[in-house]
Amino acid sequence: MKKSSVITLLTDFGLQDEYVGVMKGVILSINPRVQLVDITHNISRHDIGQAALALNASFRFFPKGSIHVVVVDPGVGGERKTVCLKQEGHVFIAPDNGVLTMVIQDKKVRKICAVTKQRYFLKPVSDTFHGRDIFAPVAAHLSKGLDMLSLGKELGLKDLATLEIPVPFVSAKHELVGAVMAIDRFGSLVTNISERTLKKFQDDEGSQRVELRLGRFKIKGVSQSYDSVKVGAPIAIIGSRNLLEIALNQGDARKYFKARIGQAVKVRFVARGK
Amino acid sequence: MKKSSVITLLTDFGLQDEYVGVMKGVILSINPRVQLVDITHNISRHDIGQAALALNASFRFFPKGSIHVVVVDPGVGGERKTVCLKQEGHVFIAPDNGVLTMVIQDKKVRKICAVTKQRYFLKPVSDTFHGRDIFAPVAAHLSKGLDMLSLGKELGLKDLATLEIPVPFVSAKHELVGAVMAIDRFGSLVTNISERTLKKFQDDEGSQRVELRLGRFKIKGVSQSYDSVKVGAPIAIIGSRNLLEIALNQGDARKYFKARIGQAVKVRFVARGK
Amino acid sequence: MKKSSVITLLTDFGLQDEYVGVMKGVILSINPRVQLVDITHNISRHDIGQAALALNASFRFFPKGSIHVVVVDPGVGGERKTVCLKQEGHVFIAPDNGVLTMVIQDKKVRKICAVTKQRYFLKPVSDTFHGRDIFAPVAAHLSKGLDMLSLGKELGLKDLATLEIPVPFVSAKHELVGAVMAIDRFGSLVTNISERTLKKFQDDEGSQRVELRLGRFKIKGVSQSYDSVKVGAPIAIIGSRNLLEIALNQGDARKYFKARIGQAVKVRFVARGK
Repeated sequence: MKKSSVITLLTDFGLQDEYVGVMKGVILSINPRVQLVDITHNISRHDIGQAALALNASFRFFPKGSIHVVVVDPGVGGERKTVCLKQEGHVFIAPDNGVLTMVIQDKKVRKICAVTKQRYFLKPVSDTFHGRDIFAPVAAHLSKGLDMLSLGKELGLKDLATLEIPVPFVSAKHELVGAVMAIDRFGSLVTNISERTLKKFQDDEGSQRVELRLGRFKIKGVSQSYDSVKVGAPIAIIGSRNLLEIALNQGDARKYFKARIGQAVKVRFVARGK
Repeated sequence: MKKSSVITLLTDFGLQDEYVGVMKGVILSINPRVQLVDITHNISRHDIGQAALALNASFRFFPKGSIHVVVVDPGVGGERKTVCLKQEGHVFIAPDNGVLTMVIQDKKVRKICAVTKQRYFLKPVSDTFHGRDIFAPVAAHLSKGLDMLSLGKELGLKDLATLEIPVPFVSAKHELVGAVMAIDRFGSLVTNISERTLKKFQDDEGSQRVELRLGRFKIKGVSQSYDSVKVGAPIAIIGSRNLLEIALNQGDARKYFKARIGQAVKVRFVARGK
Repeated sequence: MKKSSVITLLTDFGLQDEYVGVMKGVILSINPRVQLVDITHNISRHDIGQAALALNASFRFFPKGSIHVVVVDPGVGGERKTVCLKQEGHVFIAPDNGVLTMVIQDKKVRKICAVTKQRYFLKPVSDTFHGRDIFAPVAAHLSKGLDMLSLGKELGLKDLATLEIPVPFVSAKHELVGAVMAIDRFGSLVTNISERTLKKFQDDEGSQRVELRLGRFKIKGVSQSYDSVKVGAPIAIIGSRNLLEIALNQGDARKYFKARIGQAVKVRFVARGK
């Protein structure tokens, strides 16, 4: 493999303990020249879906050849495989628990292998911290040019565990029904409705005028920028992940709507003149 | 511009989401060799004043030529300009919302320009995440030697938005009246009274002996170090930002005094023999 | 001293204020090429014991020659010394308040000196932020090859302050009595009972079968991996620090056991057939 200068880390370790620092120490002991970047370490404990979303929203912004290490791993020390995936010029090392679901959901040319060759691991391998003992050293060796197929046998896409990701659908009432997938630091509600899905729905219904429903609340139209509404007012907007978001201009939509992850978001057509 | 090896980031993005990591990915895609340093990402949401204070307290400790990216940006996607400032050998990229107020408050030789040239932006530019689409790539291009005047037309100091920063004053009762500007992780209360202002007040009043008032509490004198008082006792001290701070030796002044940002701090002269 | 490429930082500064960023700026102003790694900045305020544990659990995973800066420093500006320690190829700079206790507890060849030579400090040295004014610049100078004995006079091991670290013991009832030393982000309870101490106890008692007691709770046996028990069930396991941990498989032992740091953990022999 070509040498890589960037390794990213995405975990649920938090920043209270020394775990993230230890992983970086292991990597730098093998490749002192690599750039280490934290995606986030504040994934909710064991929340594979949240990690899948954050990974998919971030990896394409890194240089081709970057290595992305994902350690949200409730099954550590158990039966789950460790896998390495190469796709779109990016390399991923992760537990095979579905955390790569969103990365692999589009059809792309890719290469997958199991990570089993112990010569690239720290010894002895613990049963509780594979981030340190397997993921970190393997990433470091890859960044120095190791061929990923040296890590273990090649796998097919069907060998990978995947999560059920909720997909928006058009109901019998001609509503586009999606869901809140994530709530960010600003309290903005990120839905699973992409700009493209919304556009297609609007085209099919022959109208640009939509209304959103979240519980008993209604929001009219999809706006271009936060300041399209006054400060503190709710707004629907295509956010930075190209997903429909519900936000408050300079406010906290989570609190305002008492929203929660998984809650339904319905988009419906509004007739002209209404 | 001379090449720079350091880009600092100061935002209110928090560390829960992938936003900071994404900005770093964008920068490293353009300049893989730069050193990325977080000032803090835990500015309270949209708190421009707090960001202005943190920026001013930190930038001078970085090497000349460092590029400081500030993204506390409640007006993103709206009418506010994006600006680039060069001063004291440091470069700043920020929304024009007053976050640079404290940096520019002393008279210094400086250069300012608008950031409008789209060729240095990510495409398409979103209306919700200029940190990723404008600030990060522009900083990366500057770090590779791009002339700041390539970014847009030159501006004057009077073109910049500024915040009203409360300034301490001497009242009719011969009290120096300041305010709590920030409360740090240790619960220490940082005032807007500088060491110099305090010294001048003491000189003018012809006495070194002062007493501080915070609400109904009194603190006698300004001490040299925390251990001038016993553990748990209140103390006034010139803190690391050269500002008067009210703290507790190994305790939490915020809790002890039930203090809040904006609260008045009064310094008064104490006659000898009292 | 040989040049070093890694400086680690371990503090109780938190990530809210600009303090950590400022230390990094000072270091990069002296040595722009060094790799900066955060161990953690979320040590509880002034908790020297917690910092000692995190330092000891992490430093060996970094490359030889790394410089470890520890700033948990309730006595800043007071009488305590600043010290530099070289041991196992690693260099430590810390306040002499016991934070190095666990690093030095095994007998090793080492070198210790006081840090007093002001020419390597920032001027003027504040009485409140030695992390910025002393620790950071001294670490940066060492990373560029400065001989540690240039920092101040050589000290002996007996000159260093140490903490009382609770040590497990075997009680009259043939119980191995330890204590909860730390509680991590996952709610796992880290005890002071090492794998070796546990093994010796089991050998001495002639049995592999043990039972743990934590308050009124009992846990049978020490398991190999979290999935040895069902999800949500308690488990005793040798954790990644080679210490006995009490955890819940994918749950939070702190909440489940209402555990706290310092609480006794008792291991006792279970007769066969019982």
